[in-house]
Amino acid sequence: MGARIDHLGIAVKDLARAEPLFAALLGTPAAGREVVASEGVEVSFFRVGESRIELLQATGPESPIARAIERRGEGVHHVCLAVDDIDAEVARLRGLGFQFVGDAPRPGAGGHRVAFIHPKSAGGVLVELSQAGEGGH
Amino acid sequence: MGARIDHLGIAVKDLARAEPLFAALLGTPAAGREVVASEGVEVSFFRVGESRIELLQATGPESPIARAIERRGEGVHHVCLAVDDIDAEVARLRGLGFQFVGDAPRPGAGGHRVAFIHPKSAGGVLVELSQAGEGGH
Repeated sequence: MGARIDHLGIAVKDLARAEPLFAALLGTPAAGREVVASEGVEVSFFRVGESRIELLQATGPESPIARAIERRGEGVHHVCLAVDDIDAEVARLRGLGFQFVGDAPRPGAGGHRVAFIHPKSAGGVLVELSQAGEGGH
Repeated sequence: MGARIDHLGIAVKDLARAEPLFAALLGTPAAGREVVASEGVEVSFFRVGESRIELLQATGPESPIARAIERRGEGVHHVCLAVDDIDAEVARLRGLGFQFVGDAPRPGAGGHRVAFIHPKSAGGVLVELSQAGEGGH
């Protein structure tokens, strides 16, 4: 586990404003967009080495991103670690006492299977685990 | 720029408690510790692919980490991007209107030269730029 940071998720109010800002900051254009209806987010991502930076905009007021921005403002929302075998990792971490949020694992963006560790279990950090699907990245 | 996430800095109250927690989470032992007196922090880091996860504990009540934890609790404090030429990057970003915090660049951990972009300039994210020193990593 912990072989790679898959991405860093950043909560933003307005993708249309944040996308050119991060393109300027990173010196690279946005690499793609995706709506993940099940999580209530629209995502714009940038490639940074073996990782990505993902800007997350809420698709509605009930989105976890809308609630996060209400509580804490814009900024880093979660850190995603790539894992090879998410079932084994979820079982290993549950055995160590880590708490997960919602169903774990469950379907995520890009055909991945994902699981979220509760920030109370992980030093205040919302940690996502992500396993690429068949033929995925 | 943006060729690699150098590290993710996580503010913690107590390294002695956080270090074994993240070792369990990441499935890898801590790779080293360092006190950066100029920044008021003690750091413990974990290797994750081409990046690191750095736990930051304040060395005193005036440390930026102590103040960050007071305001927002434990959690992600900053994101550091590796750059090849920090002087050129700081000049490029200043030209685009990005604001820096304090002296930029200035000496950082591990003999690096670093600069911090103000979160107000970068979507609520405290972004560090870091250039490795001669023979550094």
